[in-house]
Amino acid sequence: MPEPIRVAAVQLTSGSNHEENVERAIDLTRAAATEGATYVQLPEYFNYLGPAEGYPEVAETIPGPTTTRLGEYARDRRITLHLGSMLEIGGVPGKYFNTSVVLNNAGDVLATYRKAHLFDVNVPGTRTSHESDTILPGERLVVAECPGFRLGLSVCFDLRFPELYRALALMGASVLAIPSAFNDVTGLAHWEVLVRARAIENHAFVVAAAHAGTTAEGIATFGHSMIVDPWGEVIAESSSDGEDLLVATLDLEQVARRRSQIDVLRLRRPDLYGSGFGPG
Amino acid sequence: MPEPIRVAAVQLTSGSNHEENVERAIDLTRAAATEGATYVQLPEYFNYLGPAEGYPEVAETIPGPTTTRLGEYARDRRITLHLGSMLEIGGVPGKYFNTSVVLNNAGDVLATYRKAHLFDVNVPGTRTSHESDTILPGERLVVAECPGFRLGLSVCFDLRFPELYRALALMGASVLAIPSAFNDVTGLAHWEVLVRARAIENHAFVVAAAHAGTTAEGIATFGHSMIVDPWGEVIAESSSDGEDLLVATLDLEQVARRRSQIDVLRLRRPDLYGSGFGPG
Repeated sequence: MPEPIRVAAVQLTSGSNHEENVERAIDLTRAAATEGATYVQLPEYFNYLGPAEGYPEVAETIPGPTTTRLGEYARDRRITLHLGSMLEIGGVPGKYFNTSVVLNNAGDVLATYRKAHLFDVNVPGTRTSHESDTILPGERLVVAECPGFRLGLSVCFDLRFPELYRALALMGASVLAIPSAFNDVTGLAHWEVLVRARAIENHAFVVAAAHAGTTAEGIATFGHSMIVDPWGEVIAESSSDGEDLLVATLDLEQVARRRSQIDVLRLRRPDLYGSGFGPG
Repeated sequence: MPEPIRVAAVQLTSGSNHEENVERAIDLTRAAATEGATYVQLPEYFNYLGPAEGYPEVAETIPGPTTTRLGEYARDRRITLHLGSMLEIGGVPGKYFNTSVVLNNAGDVLATYRKAHLFDVNVPGTRTSHESDTILPGERLVVAECPGFRLGLSVCFDLRFPELYRALALMGASVLAIPSAFNDVTGLAHWEVLVRARAIENHAFVVAAAHAGTTAEGIATFGHSMIVDPWGEVIAESSSDGEDLLVATLDLEQVARRRSQIDVLRLRRPDLYGSGFGPG
């Protein structure tokens, strides 16, 4: 029988000042640990949410200075610290990865996942985005073995692709991570429905830490960080009003129980639409 | 530029009296045609929602007496009539298919789809169901070429499997059909979220005609028939209060427009999780 775990989603209002962003992340992570959280998730681009001109200065290797600094904190508080995502130096000049990093409670890099679906969109009422101008896409799906549970990794725009979450569930994830920075237009229209759908259709927990407030580029982010149970019920949810901290206790046994009631993974028909795994 | 189409979802309270069910379906289809609908969808098991003991009496071949009778009506009113689903005689004694039938406006069978995911569940607060005791699973995905649009076919429990709808969208569906008979427990928890998610993640219209009211077996159905646009907005929705008729005009051009804004089909990563098509 899996033990319950206490998890936190940290909602930030990161800007283009790397040092300030990291300090706010540490402050809120400290508050989460004080409330007993042993898994803490930050949002996408937690340490820099600004113009691409700033990428060369803040992109790092992983491990690197920022993961080492946060890793010391994770070790000190004995928490699994999920950095949402950060810019990772890629193999191509002027190009980077948008990389999720999970630090274990010894302070080491437990897992990295490079965002697979890049935000190339043109939605009226929002700024046109072509993330693939500067970001290289990831080339593999990743689950992380955290103490007591297996975590499926994803980042923000990945949320629109249910096949990714199905694959993560088939790889054994009982908790799905969706660190994000949705804007206020698509966030209002789609965020809650899609986050809850990923929980329901896989009978998995979802932890989704988001940015709220207006970024350095004047983009209004949606906030509404969420923690959702395997039946799709919202356990905790923030507003759009800036920084926030959600803490909840997850009864991991619910995953197996809900899947025994409606066995969505076993009842699939891969003969009709494919396995849900990659070619490897 | 595709022409707008006028569509209807007919919410029924079918029981175990085949003749009464068919008459009510015709009455409400007539009302839909009078309101200008040229595509009318009935719910799952539209002509018999009762115990399996009654299946041998109501199961038919397709085409058969019921499709011929309804086909005359479709031809008379020049509508595409989607029968939701009905029991089709299978190749195995005592076994049937749960089959969607789409009749064209000449009254002929345009397409059939046999439900692929069978309702084998055991959810507290609802009756245990093991649909596969009596129903054989379908073996192929189906889109129907309707006047002015391509319709992706599915039935009820299929809704929990996003890979099916992705495959239908990749097969060119701009409207997804989800005739259903959700119960009040899983309906309240999951119906609206999943219906809207299928629309959003594929940027397709969804028409989902449901049963409402209590069946002959004492099962409370959820109702809430829905018509949803490709941005996930609910155009029309019923309550749980018995029979109803939803009629809406769909601006089919929205499908291409939304997909040009967020190109969910092109931005997929089949190299990571498979094509979304079947083995053939």
